[in-house]
Amino acid sequence: MLRVKRQDIEDLAVGAAILGTGGGGDPYIGKLMAHQVIERKGPIELLDPAEIDDEALVIPSAAMGTPTVLIEKVPSGDEAIKAFELLQKYLNKKATCTCPIEAGGVNSTIPFVVAGAMNIPVVDADGMGRAFPELQMVSFTIYGVKASPMAMADEKGNGVLFETIDNLWTEKIARVTTIKMGGTAWIALYACNGNKFKESSICRTVSKGIEIGRSLREAKARGVNQLDALLDSTSGHLIFRGKIVGVERANIGGFARGEATIQGLDDYKGQTMTIRFQNENLVAEVDGRIIASVPDLICIIDSETIKPITTERLRYGYRVLVVACPCSEKWRSSEGLKLVGPKYFGYDIEYQPIEKIARGG
Amino acid sequence: MLRVKRQDIEDLAVGAAILGTGGGGDPYIGKLMAHQVIERKGPIELLDPAEIDDEALVIPSAAMGTPTVLIEKVPSGDEAIKAFELLQKYLNKKATCTCPIEAGGVNSTIPFVVAGAMNIPVVDADGMGRAFPELQMVSFTIYGVKASPMAMADEKGNGVLFETIDNLWTEKIARVTTIKMGGTAWIALYACNGNKFKESSICRTVSKGIEIGRSLREAKARGVNQLDALLDSTSGHLIFRGKIVGVERANIGGFARGEATIQGLDDYKGQTMTIRFQNENLVAEVDGRIIASVPDLICIIDSETIKPITTERLRYGYRVLVVACPCSEKWRSSEGLKLVGPKYFGYDIEYQPIEKIARGG
Repeated sequence: MLRVKRQDIEDLAVGAAILGTGGGGDPYIGKLMAHQVIERKGPIELLDPAEIDDEALVIPSAAMGTPTVLIEKVPSGDEAIKAFELLQKYLNKKATCTCPIEAGGVNSTIPFVVAGAMNIPVVDADGMGRAFPELQMVSFTIYGVKASPMAMADEKGNGVLFETIDNLWTEKIARVTTIKMGGTAWIALYACNGNKFKESSICRTVSKGIEIGRSLREAKARGVNQLDALLDSTSGHLIFRGKIVGVERANIGGFARGEATIQGLDDYKGQTMTIRFQNENLVAEVDGRIIASVPDLICIIDSETIKPITTERLRYGYRVLVVACPCSEKWRSSEGLKLVGPKYFGYDIEYQPIEKIARGG
Repeated sequence: MLRVKRQDIEDLAVGAAILGTGGGGDPYIGKLMAHQVIERKGPIELLDPAEIDDEALVIPSAAMGTPTVLIEKVPSGDEAIKAFELLQKYLNKKATCTCPIEAGGVNSTIPFVVAGAMNIPVVDADGMGRAFPELQMVSFTIYGVKASPMAMADEKGNGVLFETIDNLWTEKIARVTTIKMGGTAWIALYACNGNKFKESSICRTVSKGIEIGRSLREAKARGVNQLDALLDSTSGHLIFRGKIVGVERANIGGFARGEATIQGLDDYKGQTMTIRFQNENLVAEVDGRIIASVPDLICIIDSETIKPITTERLRYGYRVLVVACPCSEKWRSSEGLKLVGPKYFGYDIEYQPIEKIARGG
């Protein structure tokens, strides 16, 4: 068991935003929310999945919607607590612990806000090991864990509970509700016992996020190459370096959808990369050829600061590095690829693991 | 206390569809649903509001959405029971009785389906005394009764519970959910104790519907003028007679919206009436002048059969009578008119009671 303190949250917000591959929320907003709670309540326990009882009730906590809205409609944190309490009330049972549903600048830190308010620990695991745009895209789905009953709350005080026939229907109905609530909402879902959670979750995503953030910070302090630290801590591959020359982005169907065009620099001079996203970066093409795709992680990093740039912050002129990292092995199964592979998102290509592409296909 | 039998349901389906002013669902579908239950369970009790205990828990039961869809997606009745049970589970309390939320061919008969399944009586009252398109448009809202917690279910087995800050927010969020569920959904809402219910409901809408249907049936059997029977039993005024020469209708925002154009016949020759609707008929204009409007009832009646024609069945060629009837006095207060008056629907006119217009303004 770890105790997560202020510095860990600083590191987590950065590291998790890298794992968030453009989505999962802005790290600055995410860390502010968690800092408030830790200041008031002290450090929050982070439990290894192996430490939780088989009979424990784990309820993940998250934000849903388009991150583009979240930076204008800054949350207080109470929304997430309200959703969590609504689900507990409906289940007529208290959660033993909470955890993130995905990695991201906001979605990795919200569970700490909820944990602080509820006086429960956070489990060091999530349902993605990265971020994905849709609710059913979690390893829990592969293992038959139901998203519903799911609770949702907004900053106005509205709450909704969903009891759906499958996780895709949870996504469909919850998405239109989120749009009506103003583009973002706060959720509690995939309530699960400890036994099932250990089988179905992606372990140690939280500590991995902290570790990535810490290794970047320490590299900077020691004056060593931060990019090397990033590639080491993420098992990542540098796949492009350039300048953003175009960003198209629109809120469509409750998501931030669009693409960024990057003009190559240095070794990549003369090449153009296009990264298409739906909240998260989905595919990276160079001159029309896809060179990395979901479920592997495609991260856009500011070349100067070696900090992640989320979808909603992308803009003309940024000098960036593009790093691709291997996803959890759970996503590379045929069931995993059916849920989150390139075909689901409308790209008619076979998924190739980034390690294989990096070795030259 | 009355016991509602097969013949009463036949009469109610017709009479309530007249009160439904174009909305509230198709009387044929509505009566089939209730007949099934009465065949299996026997007659259903209809309680006068005065008979219910102050501590009784009344939970109204209804369908929501566009009636145009309902005639293609015929319900089994189980959807309404599922919504009702979901709300009972959430409240952790059993309803003492149910009632309609509005009058209509389907919405007046659904409560009998639920009552049969739950072995509880139906209360002879509703929240409109007619039908209106939006959830917050009930006399309950005027008296501060909250629509939420509200439960919704669809035919696929999905359920949703709403806990909203006000009744307009219930409408907003429930409407998008209904659209996503396929255009119609089944709901339980405005749970209320007997004391508050007696104050806030519109009394005896169910028996009024039965009475209208019965008087039409008896007039027909005796060979006397059915139109007179209709005008007598509804306190209605004949405002037009003609032939439908045009219907424009589209599903927009989860409602059947549009207008019907009627070319005058007999005394009305040379005149043209336009009736604009949003599920229900909202305003009737003759040659551009509004001659009847919400909250009064505007009913389109087949001239040959003296049966109501609902919005979704309007079509070119029907010979029709248009009858306007006074609404409940509850709607004529300034609070009532704010909720359901012509201005709410975007018509910049002052509401005039139909009796006053009929006397020559």
